[in-house]
Amino acid sequence: MKAKVYVTLKPSVLDPQGKAIHHSVELLGFEKIGDVRQGKYFEIALDPGITEDEARETAEKIARDILANPVIEDFSVVVDPNGT
Amino acid sequence: MKAKVYVTLKPSVLDPQGKAIHHSVELLGFEKIGDVRQGKYFEIALDPGITEDEARETAEKIARDILANPVIEDFSVVVDPNGT
Repeated sequence: MKAKVYVTLKPSVLDPQGKAIHHSVELLGFEKIGDVRQGKYFEIALDPGITEDEARETAEKIARDILANPVIEDFSVVVDPNGT
Repeated sequence: MKAKVYVTLKPSVLDPQGKAIHHSVELLGFEKIGDVRQGKYFEIALDPGITEDEARETAEKIARDILANPVIEDFSVVVDPNGT
């Protein structure tokens, strides 16, 4: 059982790292790029014995308490029952 | 049109940041956690005029050239035609 957590800055929060990447991408000649934003991605491997609901609940609690700063960041959780 | 790029360390590469998170998670009383690995997540907003295939090709090239270090990292690209 694997849970994937995606943490992104809230849309209203400036993302200087994303802006720097956007600038580099344009310097390298890529066109048609409107914007780049950087976030974080976590893979949490959970014991195979727990249910999908337990996995989701655990992963959401970890994301809220540890992985994301709820003042400036949003997160989403995807549980993959077949992930190893 | 939005492309999402997920960059993860290759499985054979040590992830000290993930190990630190795993340790914190255990200290905070979460059980049944096998492992935590940290990756990066990017959202690339592309001009609405381009096709899905062009978007995928552009995003994969940016991921390969700029966002990921192919020596130690893997990446995957998901194109979301309805993303804004």
